[in-house]
Amino acid sequence: MESLHKEYEQLIYDKEGHIVYITLNRPEKMNTVTAEMFHSWGDALTEAEKDDDVKVIIFRGAGRCFSAGAPLDQVGYVYGMKQPKPGEKAGKIPMRVKINFDHSLFMDFFRHVLLCKKITIVQMHKYCIGVAFSIAMHADLLIADEECKVGHVEERLGLAGLSLMPIMIARCGLTKALDLCLTGKMISAKQAVEWNLINRAVPRDRLEAEVKELADGLALYPRDGIAIGKVGRELVYESMGITRGAMDHAILHTFQVSRTYEDDEYNAFKQRRDKGVKDMAHEKHDLFKTLDK
Amino acid sequence: MESLHKEYEQLIYDKEGHIVYITLNRPEKMNTVTAEMFHSWGDALTEAEKDDDVKVIIFRGAGRCFSAGAPLDQVGYVYGMKQPKPGEKAGKIPMRVKINFDHSLFMDFFRHVLLCKKITIVQMHKYCIGVAFSIAMHADLLIADEECKVGHVEERLGLAGLSLMPIMIARCGLTKALDLCLTGKMISAKQAVEWNLINRAVPRDRLEAEVKELADGLALYPRDGIAIGKVGRELVYESMGITRGAMDHAILHTFQVSRTYEDDEYNAFKQRRDKGVKDMAHEKHDLFKTLDK
Amino acid sequence: MESLHKEYEQLIYDKEGHIVYITLNRPEKMNTVTAEMFHSWGDALTEAEKDDDVKVIIFRGAGRCFSAGAPLDQVGYVYGMKQPKPGEKAGKIPMRVKINFDHSLFMDFFRHVLLCKKITIVQMHKYCIGVAFSIAMHADLLIADEECKVGHVEERLGLAGLSLMPIMIARCGLTKALDLCLTGKMISAKQAVEWNLINRAVPRDRLEAEVKELADGLALYPRDGIAIGKVGRELVYESMGITRGAMDHAILHTFQVSRTYEDDEYNAFKQRRDKGVKDMAHEKHDLFKTLDK
Amino acid sequence: MESLHKEYEQLIYDKEGHIVYITLNRPEKMNTVTAEMFHSWGDALTEAEKDDDVKVIIFRGAGRCFSAGAPLDQVGYVYGMKQPKPGEKAGKIPMRVKINFDHSLFMDFFRHVLLCKKITIVQMHKYCIGVAFSIAMHADLLIADEECKVGHVEERLGLAGLSLMPIMIARCGLTKALDLCLTGKMISAKQAVEWNLINRAVPRDRLEAEVKELADGLALYPRDGIAIGKVGRELVYESMGITRGAMDHAILHTFQVSRTYEDDEYNAFKQRRDKGVKDMAHEKHDLFKTLDK
Amino acid sequence: MESLHKEYEQLIYDKEGHIVYITLNRPEKMNTVTAEMFHSWGDALTEAEKDDDVKVIIFRGAGRCFSAGAPLDQVGYVYGMKQPKPGEKAGKIPMRVKINFDHSLFMDFFRHVLLCKKITIVQMHKYCIGVAFSIAMHADLLIADEECKVGHVEERLGLAGLSLMPIMIARCGLTKALDLCLTGKMISAKQAVEWNLINRAVPRDRLEAEVKELADGLALYPRDGIAIGKVGRELVYESMGITRGAMDHAILHTFQVSRTYEDDEYNAFKQRRDKGVKDMAHEKHDLFKTLDK
Amino acid sequence: MESLHKEYEQLIYDKEGHIVYITLNRPEKMNTVTAEMFHSWGDALTEAEKDDDVKVIIFRGAGRCFSAGAPLDQVGYVYGMKQPKPGEKAGKIPMRVKINFDHSLFMDFFRHVLLCKKITIVQMHKYCIGVAFSIAMHADLLIADEECKVGHVEERLGLAGLSLMPIMIARCGLTKALDLCLTGKMISAKQAVEWNLINRAVPRDRLEAEVKELADGLALYPRDGIAIGKVGRELVYESMGITRGAMDHAILHTFQVSRTYEDDEYNAFKQRRDKGVKDMAHEKHDLFKTLDK
Repeated sequence: MESLHKEYEQLIYDKEGHIVYITLNRPEKMNTVTAEMFHSWGDALTEAEKDDDVKVIIFRGAGRCFSAGAPLDQVGYVYGMKQPKPGEKAGKIPMRVKINFDHSLFMDFFRHVLLCKKITIVQMHKYCIGVAFSIAMHADLLIADEECKVGHVEERLGLAGLSLMPIMIARCGLTKALDLCLTGKMISAKQAVEWNLINRAVPRDRLEAEVKELADGLALYPRDGIAIGKVGRELVYESMGITRGAMDHAILHTFQVSRTYEDDEYNAFKQRRDKGVKDMAHEKHDLFKTLDK
Repeated sequence: MESLHKEYEQLIYDKEGHIVYITLNRPEKMNTVTAEMFHSWGDALTEAEKDDDVKVIIFRGAGRCFSAGAPLDQVGYVYGMKQPKPGEKAGKIPMRVKINFDHSLFMDFFRHVLLCKKITIVQMHKYCIGVAFSIAMHADLLIADEECKVGHVEERLGLAGLSLMPIMIARCGLTKALDLCLTGKMISAKQAVEWNLINRAVPRDRLEAEVKELADGLALYPRDGIAIGKVGRELVYESMGITRGAMDHAILHTFQVSRTYEDDEYNAFKQRRDKGVKDMAHEKHDLFKTLDK
Repeated sequence: MESLHKEYEQLIYDKEGHIVYITLNRPEKMNTVTAEMFHSWGDALTEAEKDDDVKVIIFRGAGRCFSAGAPLDQVGYVYGMKQPKPGEKAGKIPMRVKINFDHSLFMDFFRHVLLCKKITIVQMHKYCIGVAFSIAMHADLLIADEECKVGHVEERLGLAGLSLMPIMIARCGLTKALDLCLTGKMISAKQAVEWNLINRAVPRDRLEAEVKELADGLALYPRDGIAIGKVGRELVYESMGITRGAMDHAILHTFQVSRTYEDDEYNAFKQRRDKGVKDMAHEKHDLFKTLDK
Repeated sequence: MESLHKEYEQLIYDKEGHIVYITLNRPEKMNTVTAEMFHSWGDALTEAEKDDDVKVIIFRGAGRCFSAGAPLDQVGYVYGMKQPKPGEKAGKIPMRVKINFDHSLFMDFFRHVLLCKKITIVQMHKYCIGVAFSIAMHADLLIADEECKVGHVEERLGLAGLSLMPIMIARCGLTKALDLCLTGKMISAKQAVEWNLINRAVPRDRLEAEVKELADGLALYPRDGIAIGKVGRELVYESMGITRGAMDHAILHTFQVSRTYEDDEYNAFKQRRDKGVKDMAHEKHDLFKTLDK
Repeated sequence: MESLHKEYEQLIYDKEGHIVYITLNRPEKMNTVTAEMFHSWGDALTEAEKDDDVKVIIFRGAGRCFSAGAPLDQVGYVYGMKQPKPGEKAGKIPMRVKINFDHSLFMDFFRHVLLCKKITIVQMHKYCIGVAFSIAMHADLLIADEECKVGHVEERLGLAGLSLMPIMIARCGLTKALDLCLTGKMISAKQAVEWNLINRAVPRDRLEAEVKELADGLALYPRDGIAIGKVGRELVYESMGITRGAMDHAILHTFQVSRTYEDDEYNAFKQRRDKGVKDMAHEKHDLFKTLDK
Repeated sequence: MESLHKEYEQLIYDKEGHIVYITLNRPEKMNTVTAEMFHSWGDALTEAEKDDDVKVIIFRGAGRCFSAGAPLDQVGYVYGMKQPKPGEKAGKIPMRVKINFDHSLFMDFFRHVLLCKKITIVQMHKYCIGVAFSIAMHADLLIADEECKVGHVEERLGLAGLSLMPIMIARCGLTKALDLCLTGKMISAKQAVEWNLINRAVPRDRLEAEVKELADGLALYPRDGIAIGKVGRELVYESMGITRGAMDHAILHTFQVSRTYEDDEYNAFKQRRDKGVKDMAHEKHDLFKTLDK
C-alpha cells in the first residue's frame, strides 16, 4: 500500500498504483450506511475522480461484512430528528429537509456512483443489503464471496416494493426484481449470479485476490478510454431511463416517509420505539419468514 | 371463504381476509378471454381496489386451466361482427369501433392490471396462453404449476411477432422474447422460470397452498406501503417505456386486423370459415410444428 | 439454389424460395467487416426488402467463421486515411468525414438491420466478434454452432466499455453486458445462450440444417404479418431507447477516435505501427489474459 | 336543444345534433370544481364518447363564469377530512387516500380530457382559473370571451410553481409558463391569445355563437377521422412527455399536501381557519399584489 | 449558375458555389408532391450531402408557387392503385405496400430533411400546403413571400387533426398547432411569422435575394461546423420526441387510410370519383368555409 | 445590505433578507465567464441553497453589462492549454480533460442552475450573450433592461447551430431558436420578450427596482412550497428532455473542439493567433454582418 491519502469519517481511502480502495469503516455496526458515511463516500469518489492516475475504484467493507444496509436504529431519523422516547411522538420534519437529504443520497450519490469517471468494482462479503445493495448496483462490476447475502430486507419495514429501480430491472429483469423487492428476502451470492444481479461469486479466501486481479486487468486500459467509456454509458443510461430512476427514487423516498399504519398493521417503527431495535428485528424476522421461500 | 361479494359475468369474485380471488369462470371454454370477461375483470379489479381491506389480488382460473387465451372461434369478431357463413365476406368494421375496443382491452385494461393499487399474483395452471399470458405479465408475481404451458400461440394466426411488448422484454430479455413471439411456441413453466418470465413453478397439488402462503405473507405489509409501492412502480414503468407499450400495443392491434393474405399463404381465418375451428386448429398445429423446437 | 441474383462486393446474395442468404465473402480475412462489405450488406438488405417474395433473410459467413469483426489492419483507417509508415504521424481527418462514416455504419446500418422489413436470422459459426457481433445483435434471431465464440475483443484496443448498447442490455441484462464490454473477453456459444445473448447453440454439422428449418417455419407467416410485426418492433425499440442507441453509438464512435495515450499506457495502434499487426495482436492477447477469466 | 340526456350532479349534459354541451352547474359557487363535479365530468365524457353520433364536446359554465377553480373553502379537505374548528388540528389522512384521489383527478381525469375520443372545445367566460384552467388546457380548442381571466392563483396558497405541466409549456412556452405559475397572476383572454395559451378571444355576446359555429364546422369531419385524429394526438402527447405530465402532476399533488409552514411564513390555511375564507382571500390578494404586475 | 449537375424527375438540381438549389419542377400542377418527386428529392439531398463543397441547400418551387401539397387527383392512389371508374370499388392494397410507402415518405424522407448534413432553407412563394408544409417544417429555416399561404388543408379530406406532429408543436406551440390541424385553414405568411411557424415574410420581389443573402451568410461557416451543428440537432430532436414523430406519423398515415365514412358524412373521395377533382374541391371549399375564420 | 457572506473569486455574494444576490464581478472584462467564475458561481449557488432563509437568488453583473459570454481571448484554452505563440501549434489535450471540464460546466452547472432549490431570477443589463445566455435560460425568470442584447454570437466562431438546446426550444420555439443559433445574431430585450426568450424588458433605471419587487413578492412563498415547486419542475424538465439537453450539450462541446478548417474557410482562431483578439473580433463582425438581419 502506498499510503493513506486522506482522512474520511467512517471510511478509509487507500491508493495502490492505479487502484483506489474505498473501505467502509464502521465494522462494529456492520458498515451500515449513515449520513456521514455516504457524504464521505461521495467526497472520496470525487478525490479518486480528480486523481488522473486512478483508473479503477474498489468499494469494500472493513470487518465482518460489506454492509448491512441502513442502520436499523437510525431509519426514520436520517433527517435530523431525534428519536422520540417511548410514548412520545416524533416531531414534524419540513418537506424541504427531507427533499434535500433524499436528493443528496438517492439522486446525487447514486448518480455519482453510476457515472463515476473511473471503473468501479464492488467487493462484497457476507452482506450487501438494502441501501448498500442499491448503491452497489450503480457500480460497474460486482464480485461477492460465495457466502454473501444480498437483498432488500428493508422492504419489511413496510415499503412493499419501493426498492425497485430501473437499474435493477436492467440487471436482473422485472420478474426477479419484483420478487426480491416485494418479498424482501435475501438470496445467496450464487443465486445472485444466476439471477444476473452480480458478476461473480468466489470463495471467501479468493475474494480479495480475484477483485485485485480484475482491477489490475482493467487498469491496463488507457485513461482516455476509461473516461470515454463512461460517457458512452451516460448516454445509454439516459436513453433507457436508468439515470432518471435515481431522481424518481429520491422523490419516492421523501414520499413514503409520510405513510401511516392502521391499528391492525405491523408497525416496525412503533415496535422499535417500544421494544428496542433488537427485539423488533427478531419479531420482524419471524413475522415475514414465509416470504423467505 | 367470507362470502361471494358480487356477481360478475364469466368471473367469480371472492374475498378472504385481505385477499381477493378473481377466478376466470368459463371452464367449459378453457377460460378463453371474451370481451365480456375482460370487462368483468376490470370491474372486479376496481371493486378490489376500492376495498380498503384488500391488500392482495389473486387471478386464477376455474376448471382445467388458467386460460387458453383468446377464444379461437371469436378471434376477428371481437369488434361485434357476425362470423360470415362459408363463402360470405365479413362486413367492414369502422376504424373507430376497432380503436375503441382495442384501446379498452390492450391499453386501458393492461394498464389497469399493471398499475393496480394492490399487489397482484397470477396463479396459473395447465395453460396461460396468448392474451391471457399478456395480461398475466402485467401482474406483479406469477406462480405456475409445473405442468403449465405458456406462450404466444396466436402468432401462428399470422401475426409474426406482434405480441412483443416492452414488459415482456423487461421480464425475459429481448432474445427470449423474440424467440417466443416469432415462433409462437409454448414452453413449460419450468422453462418459463429459467427464462425469467414467471417467478415460480410448483407441483400441481402445491399450487394453491403456495400462492396462498405468499399472499398471506404479502398481506403483512401496511395498506399505505402497498399503495406507495405501486406509485413507485408507476414511475419506473413510465421511465422504461413499459406503460407506453400498452398504448402502442393497442394501436398495433387495430393496425394488424387490416392485413391481407396472398393466395400462396396459409390463411387460418379462411380455413376456419371453410373447415371449422377444430380442423383449422389441428391443421395449423401440424403446419407450424417445426417452430416448436 | 435458384440462382445468383446480383453481384455484391465481398458478399454473396442467394435466394431460395422465400429465403435470402447474405453470405459474408472475405473468407481469407475471416470475413472481417470492411467499409465495402457493410455498404454491400446494406444494399443487399435493400434488395431483399424490395423483393415481395422474400420473407426471411439469413446472414452467414463463407469459410472458417462468420466474422472476426473489424479488420485489425484497418481499424483507425476506415475514414480513408492511409496507414502512416513507422515513425510517421497519421494525417488529420476532418470531423465531418468521421461523422458521415460513423453515422452510415453505426446508425444507419445498425438501424437498417434492426428495422429490416423481413425476419432476420444470423447463422454464426466459429467467430462472431466485435462489430460483427454488434450487427448480429440487431437481427431477430441468432443461432450459433457450439464452438462459436462471441465477444467484444476490440475493447482491448483501449475502448474500455464503449461497445455497450441498449440492445445488448435488452438481450442479456446490464450485469453481463458490462462484464463482456469491460473485459473484452470471448465466451462460448453455449454460455451466450445461458446469458441470453443468442437463441441457440447447435453442433457444427447441424447448424445449416437447423437454421434452414427455422427459416422455413417462419416463412409460413404471411407477408403482411411479417411487415406488421416489424412495425410493432419499431414502436417497442423506440420506446425502450434501443433505436436511439444506434445514434448515440455513432456519435460515441466519432468521439472516441480522438483519444490519446499517455506514455505509461499500452497503445495498440503504436505497437501495430512499429511491430506489425500480428505481433501487436499476440502482445495484446497476452497482456489482457487475466481479463479472460 | 334535443333533450336532456341524463342527470349528473353539479353538471348539465345536453346533446344537439353532433354536439354535446357539458355545462358546469354550480353557478352560486362560481362553478368551482368539487370532487363530485369532476367525477360527474368524467362520467359525462364517457357518455359522450360512447355515443357514436357525438363528434364535438363543448365544456362551458352556467352563470357568471366558466369556473373559478378549486373551491377555496374545500382546498385541503378534498380527501374527506372535515375542516377542523379554530384551534383544532386536522386529522391525519393516510397516504393511500390522497394517492387515490389525486390519481383520479390529476392523472385519470386530465388524461381522459386529453385523450377524449371526440373533439373538445372549452367555452370560457369571465374566469377560468386554477384547476379549471389545468383541465381546460387538456382540451383541443379554447375560446374565451374578451373579459375572461385565466391564471393559476392557487399558487398563492403556497405552492410556488407546482401548476407547471408539460402541456402548459407545449402551449405557451416555458418562459410564459413559469411567469404564470410562479407569480400566480391572472391575465386577460386577449393576453392569453398572445401568449398562445388559448385560441381565440371574442366579445362576450359573440362567445356562444362563435363556439357553436366552430363546433358545427368541426362536426363536418367523419366519425372515423375524428377517432383516428385522437390516436395521432395520443402518440404525439406520449412522445413529448405530455401524457406523463399528468401522472407526475398527480404524484406532486399528493407530495405537496405534506408541506409545513414556518412561523414567519404566510399560511393561508391557518388564516382560513382563524378568519374564515373571505377574509383570508382578501388578505392574500393584498399580500401578493406586487406579483400581479 | 455553375451548371446543371444531374437530371432528376420533376426536380431541378443547381449548384452555385457553396449553395445547392433543389427546385420542385411540376409547375403545371403547382408542384404538388408525387411519389416520383419525393424520391427525386431524397436522391438530390443525398447528392448535395455527398458534395463536400455544398454548405447550404435551398428548396424552392418552379412556376406560380412553392407547392400546393399532395396532388388532389392522386390522394388515395399513392400506393399504386388505379383510380376506380365511377361506380367501381378501389382494389385492396396489402398493408405491407402501404407501410413501405408511408415509411419511405413520412419517416425516412422527413428524417432525411430533418437531419440533412447541410443547412437547409425553404424559399416559399404563394403556397406551401399540406405535405409540402410538413416537409418544409423539417428544414432549418423557412422564408416566405408575404403573399404565401401555409396550412394543412388536406385535413378537410376527413383527417381531423392527423397532421399534428411534434416538430410543429416545437415550432408554433400546441395551441396554434391544434388550431391549424383541426380547422385545416390556411394562414398568411405574415401570420405564420407571428405564429412562429416560419422565420421571415418578405415582399415577393425580394424573396430570392433575401434567401440568397442568408444562404451566403451561412456559407461562411466551416464545413465541419455545419456537420457538427447537425449532430447537435440530432441529439436535441431525439430527446424532445421530434425524430420519433416522423415514425409515428408514418404509422398513422397507414392507419388512417383504412377509415370508413358513414352515409351522413361528407366523403370527398366519393365526390371526387363521382364529380371529378375540381368540383369536389370547390364543394369541399364551400362546405368547410366556416372553419377558415 | 446585511453583510458580505463569503469571498468568491470573480463573484460577489450578498444576502438581504430572503434574497441572495450573486454578482458577476469581472467588470473590466464585461463579466465574461471564466472557468474560475463558473466554479465560484456553483459554490455560491450551493451556499444559497444550504441557507434555509434564502428563498430567491438574483444573478446580476457588476459594471457595464451582465455578461458578454465567454472571454474571447480564452475560448479554446479553457482546458488549461497555453495559447500558442504566432506560428506555433496548440498542444494536444487529452479527451478526459475536455470531458471533465465540459461536463462540469455544461452539464453539472447548467443542471445546478436549472434545478436550484430556490427561485432564481436573472437581472440582465446591456449584454447577456453566448454561454452567459445559455446559463440564464436555465434560471426561472429573466428580466432585462430595454437596451440589453441577447444572442449566441459565439456561433460565428464556426459552430453553426451548436448552441441549440431543448430549454431554448421550450422557451421560444424551434423556429426562433434555429434563427438565433444559426445566424448568431443579437436581438434586443424587447424582441426577446416578444420571442418568449425572457420575461420582461424594463427601462434601465427601473431594472433593479423591478427585479427587487418581484423577488420580494416571490419571497412571500413558504420555504417548503419553493422546494416542492422545484421538485415539480425537475419532473417536468426530465419528461420533456430538458435535463438531458445539458448532458448532450456537454458531450457536443467536447465533440466540436476537434473540428478542423479547410483553407478556404474563415478560421477565427487562426486570425486571433495571427492578428490578436480585437482585430479578429472586428473582422468577424464585418464578415457576418449580413446574418444580423
